[in-house]
Amino acid sequence: MALSTQPYKGARDFYPEDRRLQKYLFSKMRTVTERFGYEEYDAPILEPIELYMAKTGDEIVHEQTYVFQDRGGRTVTLRPEMTPSVSRMVAAKRQELQYPLRWYSIPNLWRYERPQHGRLREHWQLNVDIFGVKDASAEIEIIQIADAILREFGATPDMYTIRLNSRKMMDFIMREDLKLSDVQAHTLSRLIDRRAKMPADAFAAAVDAIFTPSQRDTGNSDRLLELLDMTRIEQLPEALQRQPATQELKELMATLEQSRIPNVIFDITLMRGLDYYTDIVFEVYDNHPDNNRSMFGGGRYDGLVGLFGVDPLPTVGFGMGDVTLRTFLEGHGLLPNLRSETDVYVITIGQVYQQAQAAIQEMRELGLNVAVAPAGSKTDKQIKIAHKKGIHYVLFIGQKELEKQQYTLRNLLTSQEEQHSIARIVSIIRDYRTTEA
Amino acid sequence: MALSTQPYKGARDFYPEDRRLQKYLFSKMRTVTERFGYEEYDAPILEPIELYMAKTGDEIVHEQTYVFQDRGGRTVTLRPEMTPSVSRMVAAKRQELQYPLRWYSIPNLWRYERPQHGRLREHWQLNVDIFGVKDASAEIEIIQIADAILREFGATPDMYTIRLNSRKMMDFIMREDLKLSDVQAHTLSRLIDRRAKMPADAFAAAVDAIFTPSQRDTGNSDRLLELLDMTRIEQLPEALQRQPATQELKELMATLEQSRIPNVIFDITLMRGLDYYTDIVFEVYDNHPDNNRSMFGGGRYDGLVGLFGVDPLPTVGFGMGDVTLRTFLEGHGLLPNLRSETDVYVITIGQVYQQAQAAIQEMRELGLNVAVAPAGSKTDKQIKIAHKKGIHYVLFIGQKELEKQQYTLRNLLTSQEEQHSIARIVSIIRDYRTTEA
Repeated sequence: MALSTQPYKGARDFYPEDRRLQKYLFSKMRTVTERFGYEEYDAPILEPIELYMAKTGDEIVHEQTYVFQDRGGRTVTLRPEMTPSVSRMVAAKRQELQYPLRWYSIPNLWRYERPQHGRLREHWQLNVDIFGVKDASAEIEIIQIADAILREFGATPDMYTIRLNSRKMMDFIMREDLKLSDVQAHTLSRLIDRRAKMPADAFAAAVDAIFTPSQRDTGNSDRLLELLDMTRIEQLPEALQRQPATQELKELMATLEQSRIPNVIFDITLMRGLDYYTDIVFEVYDNHPDNNRSMFGGGRYDGLVGLFGVDPLPTVGFGMGDVTLRTFLEGHGLLPNLRSETDVYVITIGQVYQQAQAAIQEMRELGLNVAVAPAGSKTDKQIKIAHKKGIHYVLFIGQKELEKQQYTLRNLLTSQEEQHSIARIVSIIRDYRTTEA
Repeated sequence: MALSTQPYKGARDFYPEDRRLQKYLFSKMRTVTERFGYEEYDAPILEPIELYMAKTGDEIVHEQTYVFQDRGGRTVTLRPEMTPSVSRMVAAKRQELQYPLRWYSIPNLWRYERPQHGRLREHWQLNVDIFGVKDASAEIEIIQIADAILREFGATPDMYTIRLNSRKMMDFIMREDLKLSDVQAHTLSRLIDRRAKMPADAFAAAVDAIFTPSQRDTGNSDRLLELLDMTRIEQLPEALQRQPATQELKELMATLEQSRIPNVIFDITLMRGLDYYTDIVFEVYDNHPDNNRSMFGGGRYDGLVGLFGVDPLPTVGFGMGDVTLRTFLEGHGLLPNLRSETDVYVITIGQVYQQAQAAIQEMRELGLNVAVAPAGSKTDKQIKIAHKKGIHYVLFIGQKELEKQQYTLRNLLTSQEEQHSIARIVSIIRDYRTTEA
């Protein structure tokens, strides 16, 4: 029986046109992130399962990991996220690294989910983290980078909204104000996280069910539901507004607005699923009516590096996935038409394949990407092939051309033909490449 | 108990300095390969185990794969090599793709081996393949690319040797000449592959043991051992020299020598472990006395795409691993000192962190990669940090600088300080970056 040609379910084959787009996405991510002084790192895709036990969240670890035993009996996992790996790497060199440490990576991540639009089992995710900064300048820089990347792709502030919340403030509400236990607070956090996906009355009933009868008697449940409907910090009860965590959030939003990021809003229901966030969290929402949902996010997690037995390290970061980013760019008409990397397709006429090699080599040495048609193949067919490959120029080399050292260059988009020396041809194509890029 | 900070055994963490070197290797691989008109593709790291059963070789499939069941009961593998995946992708679009198809990729591959110097469980491998070309122009181009990549890194022909053989000629020897059965031929191929690692008498005894008593009576075993000692095609028996496969090999070597690749030799013992090669095979050897061994290789495999139930497709390709390449470059003193991607480290003096942001943003918009020291940290300490991070320039911004719009730039290598406008500073650093690169 013949082998299947399908890729593994929920993962993608990247044919050259797909890979080209992915490289375009990664290239802009890299350019912007490096502008802010970040350096790229990487880690193995296999990690011990223990790495995710502490903070990644039960659903991911127990239902979505690709976990197995290697031939030596170690239980390993295809990483479902990068944050534990980067925390491990920083912890390993906790003393020798220089802070603030600005690191980024674009790893592929694996989660066993039901594949659906905008959600695959394998995706790539830009991870940007700053280590060693306690104050809000870390959050500002991280959110500036996320914003600058979207703008680099041509997005304008009306296309997306940056939502902010403070886990510290939410902890204060749940622990100090509502006097919830650890378990109650954890359950409530998860519930709030799912709020947008639930009918209002089901949500209210589920919230109510979390409280004990005596907690319920004090009207806490209704008070919480009211709170969760507030969309501006100024609406919050005064005691809550006076909390340092709330003040910090307010100042952060003001600073972002001053630094040319007007599309920032407060979202008290924003929790982020992962257990390791400790303070400010943010999520970037697509404003497109057909795709109005969270694209990516991040926040402050000051506790992860310390899990490796070294001094804790304040950290702020975010992760931006390639699948959701692509959906966003597509929805807003921001995906470019990318040309083939190959500049010119050489077609030899007659028995000159060997003699043509010097001219071909010269073009390559001068920086052109040159593909060559097989010797003795039909010219018309080869022109069609070049066209289908998305190459814009064809160069004909025959006996006559070799004698005169003047070669016939055809622009496949305009069908215009000109005869030039190799040097001139290289210059024409390089100019074309620059103006088109 | 604290979590371990070690990466998975046999795999590498890439700290920024390691990742920088890896990106340098990949960048040169990409540049050269694209010069020859090749396009990049990619495939998922997980593949069904069946993909490797047919042709990858028993040792790899049964002893070295990372194989496991996913949560849906599918038996999957971390790819140990890329050739089956690319063959699968080509087969899936056999009809619509345009030939010759020139593709490359730089995947990470996993094999469960005992980690040792120059051999890890995870490595990256440039894979370059041309599909749809029957004649030797495919072999010539593929070997030219392998050669051009090494030269792009600064290697000279004396540093490495390209060894060539023909599996077709070897088949002729084993089947037509020695009249061996399938099983005998396969065993003999494996044995010849290990010849360099065995004492001569042990090898001779093992060869002898393959033959049946009647085969042995004709002196075949001795004749074979003699043959395997021949180092030039001209030494081969005349009947063998007249074989088309031998003629093709001879012509290929002559063409390569004419096209500025003098370091080509004939190696009748070169078999290549993988079962799918059908004709010309080659390997590139490091000539360094401390590391005189095969670095990488490839050859023609015309049968793989057809395993997927589509028309077969002639294919020639090679794979070049990052670990052996790195060992080669290191041994020959060809590894460069790479600078940090970050161009300048901004240190604010006094309470001007917020006011300094406009100048910082201007530098970024003009193309510089700018990291910023935290507000209120000690200047001396921050200069040391910039130095340790490998950043060459520090820019001081204080109240005085902001008023005069003249900022103090210090070159950390020369300790020289100058005062300039932002535009001038950007221009100085961009010039520096260009001349150093």
